[in-house]
Amino acid sequence: MLSSSEYWVLTRQQVMPDILASKKIVIIGLGLIGGSIARGLSVLRKDIEITAVGRNETVLQEAQTEGVITHLSTDIKTACANADLVIIAVPSLTVERILEELKSVVSEHTVITDAASVKSTIVDAVINTFGKVPVNFVPGHPIAGSEHSGYSASSAELYQGKKVILTPLDNTDEQAVNLVTALWQSLGAEVLTMSVKKHDSILAATSHLPHLLAFSLVDTLSQQGESEEIFRYAAGGFRDFTRIASSDPQMWHDIFMANGEAVVEVLDVYMGDLSRLRQAVLDKNSDDLKSTFKRAKKSRDKFLSHFENGADLSDD
Amino acid sequence: MLSSSEYWVLTRQQVMPDILASKKIVIIGLGLIGGSIARGLSVLRKDIEITAVGRNETVLQEAQTEGVITHLSTDIKTACANADLVIIAVPSLTVERILEELKSVVSEHTVITDAASVKSTIVDAVINTFGKVPVNFVPGHPIAGSEHSGYSASSAELYQGKKVILTPLDNTDEQAVNLVTALWQSLGAEVLTMSVKKHDSILAATSHLPHLLAFSLVDTLSQQGESEEIFRYAAGGFRDFTRIASSDPQMWHDIFMANGEAVVEVLDVYMGDLSRLRQAVLDKNSDDLKSTFKRAKKSRDKFLSHFENGADLSDD
Repeated sequence: MLSSSEYWVLTRQQVMPDILASKKIVIIGLGLIGGSIARGLSVLRKDIEITAVGRNETVLQEAQTEGVITHLSTDIKTACANADLVIIAVPSLTVERILEELKSVVSEHTVITDAASVKSTIVDAVINTFGKVPVNFVPGHPIAGSEHSGYSASSAELYQGKKVILTPLDNTDEQAVNLVTALWQSLGAEVLTMSVKKHDSILAATSHLPHLLAFSLVDTLSQQGESEEIFRYAAGGFRDFTRIASSDPQMWHDIFMANGEAVVEVLDVYMGDLSRLRQAVLDKNSDDLKSTFKRAKKSRDKFLSHFENGADLSDD
Repeated sequence: MLSSSEYWVLTRQQVMPDILASKKIVIIGLGLIGGSIARGLSVLRKDIEITAVGRNETVLQEAQTEGVITHLSTDIKTACANADLVIIAVPSLTVERILEELKSVVSEHTVITDAASVKSTIVDAVINTFGKVPVNFVPGHPIAGSEHSGYSASSAELYQGKKVILTPLDNTDEQAVNLVTALWQSLGAEVLTMSVKKHDSILAATSHLPHLLAFSLVDTLSQQGESEEIFRYAAGGFRDFTRIASSDPQMWHDIFMANGEAVVEVLDVYMGDLSRLRQAVLDKNSDDLKSTFKRAKKSRDKFLSHFENGADLSDD
């Protein structure tokens, strides 16, 4: 009988291109992101060789038993010595430590990519470690987050219909970009490229800022004297608005440490607009309130129609 | 064959108490809120008499054809002359105009209730109209919003598992409160009572403020130069965070006109906290960021577990 993941592969007519199928792949970090890559690849090709490196041996062994990975290791150097493709899927601020270990063992033919939410700090970390960005390093970011984290939340379908942004540099090797593109496309994602700066500024607006606002609101309300009661009467709108405040604190700490400048830039625009709206509320400025809400609803409904046409919502 | 609504009534073993079953009920405003009341009641009892008053005759006729209401009217005075229970389900700022019309026709035995999101302005409107709050007026608020509005979005199950807050005054008649309680309980809701002031302050924090933040964020981003691109890369987290920004602008205009003071009070606390978090981001204050995110995640996860144990999520 087919598993649901195998059924997914069949119905999507998903195939793994030759460029990828014969490669020796190493995934560093087997959490939500790395685990979902391994699950997706292992469902696509039973014979693919995937090594996972992680600190938690129990999780690695579980993944091996499930057939999600073929090899496991807790040592980066051993695991990556003969790798063709190394995928770094650890929290942003841990990437530099991983690169340090990789430096001495990877050959110039090893393609390296990552999945961190902020690209400028990754590029900085690569330069700190290698002295420059190697031509085979392809910075990448799957826009497929969730408030759930860890291997237990991973899924073969996580990237289906999602966008993955690659931010290659001027000197990045085209073959390396093609290999990383093939990886994400195999998993069902749409791959786009843009500059590092543009990526970090767009993500600051659409992802990092909303997370900051949600974390901050829940924290504010939880510190009100009557917080138990406040939450007691909150309904579905509040649940959805604050869903992202249930996200992994360590991961989001790293993101704000890494992309603070871009986040504060858009936050300041937001706080300016919010102050004006506050004044409109105080002044009972009917026209101002109505036109703002109408504009917002129109933009949001338009976003939604694009989003629902372009993406599979089932897994995010 | 049973309709899904009838099946819902059977599986929930929902019954309508005698106190309600024989009453002549008038619903003013047949949108999401009023339409869902009518649908729920008509499913519970085929023989119940429900008159709906509205401006849109097409909608009223549709509801009558569907068997959701028994009578329709576009004239409040005619419809309410012999009513036992009048439910006002129109946008907040329209309530006073409705009360003016009701004043000359309702007897002292007619129980009147409403469903507006802000209770202080409703009480003020009642006092403006009647000189005092009649003992048979029971202010009420079903916490069962949705970003969808209108009769077409109404559902017999809307109130199932939801909370309804009544804010009776010192002189409010107990029998009147019992009748309104029976109404909402019949529809599957949990009925709670609290003071007007407390209601408006709690709703400002859990509902009105999040809506203001969401409307404001979508509006800010839509006015960025590269807004098309910004929205293009937004993912599921953004969709959920901004869902409430697709809500009815007129309704939310009314709410902020009505509850501005309480909203600005909690907004100011929030903006103070947000400014501190902004500074922590700028300062790369690792401890501060991590502890804030951890606290928020803990509170939100706790809220969620209460919420999911206490409420039916399917319809909100």
